[in-house]
Amino acid sequence: MLSASETLEPAAVAPLLCAGITTWSPLRHWKVGPGQKVGIIGLGGLGHMGVKFAHALGAKVVLFTTSKSKIEDAKRLGADEVVVSTDRAQMKAHMGSFHFILDCVSADHDLNAYLALLKRDGTLCLVGAPEKPMAVGAFGLLAGRHSLSGSGIGGIAETQEMLDFCAEHNITADVEVIAMKDINGAYERMLKSAVKYRFSIDMATL
Amino acid sequence: MLSASETLEPAAVAPLLCAGITTWSPLRHWKVGPGQKVGIIGLGGLGHMGVKFAHALGAKVVLFTTSKSKIEDAKRLGADEVVVSTDRAQMKAHMGSFHFILDCVSADHDLNAYLALLKRDGTLCLVGAPEKPMAVGAFGLLAGRHSLSGSGIGGIAETQEMLDFCAEHNITADVEVIAMKDINGAYERMLKSAVKYRFSIDMATL
Repeated sequence: MLSASETLEPAAVAPLLCAGITTWSPLRHWKVGPGQKVGIIGLGGLGHMGVKFAHALGAKVVLFTTSKSKIEDAKRLGADEVVVSTDRAQMKAHMGSFHFILDCVSADHDLNAYLALLKRDGTLCLVGAPEKPMAVGAFGLLAGRHSLSGSGIGGIAETQEMLDFCAEHNITADVEVIAMKDINGAYERMLKSAVKYRFSIDMATL
Repeated sequence: MLSASETLEPAAVAPLLCAGITTWSPLRHWKVGPGQKVGIIGLGGLGHMGVKFAHALGAKVVLFTTSKSKIEDAKRLGADEVVVSTDRAQMKAHMGSFHFILDCVSADHDLNAYLALLKRDGTLCLVGAPEKPMAVGAFGLLAGRHSLSGSGIGGIAETQEMLDFCAEHNITADVEVIAMKDINGAYERMLKSAVKYRFSIDMATL
């Protein structure tokens, strides 16, 4: 079997141990695969890994974003379709059609708009963690027996499974490698979500 | 096989077609049975059926109520334990211990207090439907991969399964049979949750 440590670029592997396993674990737990339509909300550090994994697992992948500027990049990363979530007509076209949606957004956003997009028994799973409590309407859960779930990180065995999968499918995170002296600027850019899609610090520059 | 129509009192069977199937369906969907600890929130029309079914399915049943006056009745109906949900110490004693909780309350209440009582991969399922959106904290879902779900009514085949189970286990709803002329008073009592636990109208009095 291929080993991630032998074939992949270490700087691009580093975020797999956080953003990678955080998105891999729920996609595996909810058995995402061929024949399924899967949504990924938000194209940041978590979301860009969610798109890559869901695509490589064989699902049809729809990326939700508020930024039209991310459409092309989402498609390059593996999305079959991109929905601009502020466009009501685009959202409405996907009503009741998703098996699983992975929510990678930590900013406040309306979950009910996404619960309405689930099929019967579909799950909306949070891996981003908005700071404030989220307003959830009961009927978005009762109608269609929808679930709102969450998942945090993953275990050691699952992390190894992910790394093996990445080696086999040549998957890494998209990173910008920076020197230690640049971390303050990088932090500012991270706050503005202006990174594609993770910073890796070259420890040789310490 | 015993038939519900042959062995059970019709007036007490009537609510099985609403409160009965509404609670039966999620208990079966989430495979409630022996070896599980199951919570039922609220002892009204729905909740009293939830207690009876979860008990008859072999689970350990804990009833949550805000009313100390309901403790004895909950035990008579099949609860192994009753928790007064306004008592923080009682709630804390059950942290992380439930496989499944069925929420039968339609009034506003704090879901986060119950999400914290779930085991890993546990589900809190709504069958009551609070009118206003509910405030849900992300960490109550992420920690322990908890799910917040909902379920509405059930299908014909599942309703027949429930009726057969009721015939076999001698289960009916606890009802007060009223005459048609008493419905206005009954409606007032229903608004005050002062019915044990459903009214059945004797249609011969029409």
